[in-house]
Amino acid sequence: MADLTPNPSFSLTIRVQVPNRAGMLASVTQAIADVGGNLGQIKLLEQTRKIAIRDITVDATSTEHAEQIVNAVKAVSHIKVLNVYDRTFNMHRGGKICIQGKMPLETQADLAMAYTPGVGRICEAIAEDPEKVYSLTIKSNTVAIVTDGSAVLGLGNLGAEAALPVMEGKAMLFKKFAGIDAFPICLANQSTDQIVETVKNIAPVFGGVNLEDISAPRCFEIEERLRRELDIPVFHDDQHGTAIVSLAALINALKLVHKSMEDVRIVINGAGAAGIAIARLLRKAGAKTILMCDSQGILSKSRADLTSQKKEFAVDAAGSLAGAMSGADVFLGVSVPHVLTPQMVLSMAKKPIVMAMANPIPEIQPELVEHDVAVMATGRSDYPNQINNVLAFPGIFRGALDCRAQEITTNMYLEAANAIASLIHASDLDREHIIPSVFDERVVTAVAGAVQRAARQDGVARR
Amino acid sequence: MADLTPNPSFSLTIRVQVPNRAGMLASVTQAIADVGGNLGQIKLLEQTRKIAIRDITVDATSTEHAEQIVNAVKAVSHIKVLNVYDRTFNMHRGGKICIQGKMPLETQADLAMAYTPGVGRICEAIAEDPEKVYSLTIKSNTVAIVTDGSAVLGLGNLGAEAALPVMEGKAMLFKKFAGIDAFPICLANQSTDQIVETVKNIAPVFGGVNLEDISAPRCFEIEERLRRELDIPVFHDDQHGTAIVSLAALINALKLVHKSMEDVRIVINGAGAAGIAIARLLRKAGAKTILMCDSQGILSKSRADLTSQKKEFAVDAAGSLAGAMSGADVFLGVSVPHVLTPQMVLSMAKKPIVMAMANPIPEIQPELVEHDVAVMATGRSDYPNQINNVLAFPGIFRGALDCRAQEITTNMYLEAANAIASLIHASDLDREHIIPSVFDERVVTAVAGAVQRAARQDGVARR
Repeated sequence: MADLTPNPSFSLTIRVQVPNRAGMLASVTQAIADVGGNLGQIKLLEQTRKIAIRDITVDATSTEHAEQIVNAVKAVSHIKVLNVYDRTFNMHRGGKICIQGKMPLETQADLAMAYTPGVGRICEAIAEDPEKVYSLTIKSNTVAIVTDGSAVLGLGNLGAEAALPVMEGKAMLFKKFAGIDAFPICLANQSTDQIVETVKNIAPVFGGVNLEDISAPRCFEIEERLRRELDIPVFHDDQHGTAIVSLAALINALKLVHKSMEDVRIVINGAGAAGIAIARLLRKAGAKTILMCDSQGILSKSRADLTSQKKEFAVDAAGSLAGAMSGADVFLGVSVPHVLTPQMVLSMAKKPIVMAMANPIPEIQPELVEHDVAVMATGRSDYPNQINNVLAFPGIFRGALDCRAQEITTNMYLEAANAIASLIHASDLDREHIIPSVFDERVVTAVAGAVQRAARQDGVARR
Repeated sequence: MADLTPNPSFSLTIRVQVPNRAGMLASVTQAIADVGGNLGQIKLLEQTRKIAIRDITVDATSTEHAEQIVNAVKAVSHIKVLNVYDRTFNMHRGGKICIQGKMPLETQADLAMAYTPGVGRICEAIAEDPEKVYSLTIKSNTVAIVTDGSAVLGLGNLGAEAALPVMEGKAMLFKKFAGIDAFPICLANQSTDQIVETVKNIAPVFGGVNLEDISAPRCFEIEERLRRELDIPVFHDDQHGTAIVSLAALINALKLVHKSMEDVRIVINGAGAAGIAIARLLRKAGAKTILMCDSQGILSKSRADLTSQKKEFAVDAAGSLAGAMSGADVFLGVSVPHVLTPQMVLSMAKKPIVMAMANPIPEIQPELVEHDVAVMATGRSDYPNQINNVLAFPGIFRGALDCRAQEITTNMYLEAANAIASLIHASDLDREHIIPSVFDERVVTAVAGAVQRAARQDGVARR
């Protein structure tokens, strides 16, 4: 894992007892540095004349590296390791979200209003006028995060239970970035029909549906059918979230190299949910020359193994990714680690743009071609230009819920991408700054506003 | 509605501007009292030398009565009504529950641990050892509140959307009384097969399922099938919650009148979900003589219209409720308002026990037979001895989740009832105090403890 920098996903807290004399802590931190651990917080818990007890937080690159760090600390003489805990696992104990009542239930009067008998009046009001479910219940601010666990992150078909931590994390992001109440629905069934039926059955509580980590090509049909059969917005984030943020980054990268969407030759590597959605959205945004590749190479008309989605992008050309890259202006990767070589990058047109978004390890390590590209972007937070869906989905749903959109249209995607891109002013735009930070508080408002305007233009806003 | 006392479910806040001189507020409160409004908080918002603005909270008996009260205030001279709002509707705007993250997401490190890439390690840990879903996700403390909206309170088949306010209220109660995170699942489908399939499909996220407001007789089959096919506890509160609390109250009422469960003649009026479950549980608790009635009278072996559940309690006797009541020791009503007459109560055995639990209006107004019964209980909070499911379900689920019970057995019901009953010590037991208050903080702990012990005895506890 030499190609990964230490990062907080492998973060440890090591509780050590150190003799209270000069140089002892230094020998611990030196030992950690010697094996490549990245020091974070050091907290003094207790100190006597003889000893000090400290919690030392260290980022590692992997589980094995974490063990190596702990062993290095244990090997320092006079040091006692009292405890080691994995911060990521610790954070997940008992799950990451909870349900809260919005008002106190302290008295009989509170109970009589929030529950029986008072609540009966609210039920009757909704039964008489079904639209009131939006004003008198949680529906207008509540989103279902639906997965079948068939494509969990880049890890594959881990199933519903193993997908739940991702969905809880997503619910946290919805709340943090857009104030939306999202709840995980992890399905024990991977049949397309069952997924569609189940989501339709549970829809009354929700104002929107975010599909997540459902494998291609089933995800296309599931989204299509749910969009058709439900009157609330349905959005497959792995497709459209990724496409929107990629487009936003590409818009700004093209400004930087003074090329136009219509003229550039774009290679997309990876023809799953994200790759297909990116290609579709880039076309809508004006891209004329797109070469898509999957693990078998260019999606060529001569191939007999293409799904109907892949056929949409089949070209006369054939060959490998390396062939496709020759003369390309833009590489967009939503595939697997290490498939892009420095040689391929060197074969690109002048001022090449490389967006290597495979997670957590990109298609190429940025360091390898740092001086050979005009712009480099990845999915990682520890490099510049992080392409992160959290720039899109909170604002998309905020906008869609606020105007009670019936669906989320392609124009809404395009306007969201433009809104994200436009937050980087011309004077701030540079090769390490083509896209706002995920913590930029302007993002959700800008995206939500753009999405609402587009919804009104498209006639899908219901208020 | 003369038979109802004013109550907070019809609670108004009237904002009035009153000349700031002696006697003016008194004339307003007198006007409210004259039409039978029940005064609550009076809040001074603003006061000048000339005027005062106050929010006056008033409980009414009905919507019509509320209007009458407002009109009475408007008719007082020199008084200006600035605003009137319905407190129950106000409380429901935007819904009553929300989702919260349990830890902050302030830094890239927080994101990297709670979401990608760190969360991937948690997913993999669960995929390797599926039991870890209990420790590393919300599952172990999360309950689905499932309804199809077919029997919402006593209001009938109002559908999924109109049922949502009840489910949100229930979620608040789960949190308030047992610290459990419960989420409403309101189904757009009322077919038994679809309900069973859907709940099975969404089960991975949940540690338990609380079925709610599903009409009989479908509720029996749905609960039975889900209990068989899921490995998490399934509990239909309208059946078992009601049965447990009724049994608890009856245990104490019988102590008070020195009669035994084996000897008393019990009439149950109402043979829906609650009535059937009460009858089943009373039998398990030792009751030998139960006469059940539905709207057609006694469930008699001679009747051809009985469902299989009703047949369980069919007797040789036949006739009306009035006939059944003659000589009865106990009346348990889970039916409709006003079906029990004072004459029927007078025909009962000595020291009669009447539990008139129809909601919100009981089978008989307690005032009518105050001096003719040994014990009177209702479902209402404004009379003594409130039979309220909130005494049972929070502790039942707290206990079941804490010992990771596979199911909730009849012994767990019985022990929960005993635990509730035992909280009223012999010295405190009197005709107006047979059951603890819903705000008695000992209840949830006592019930949860009893449920866990019973689960271990029955071999259904998994830890």
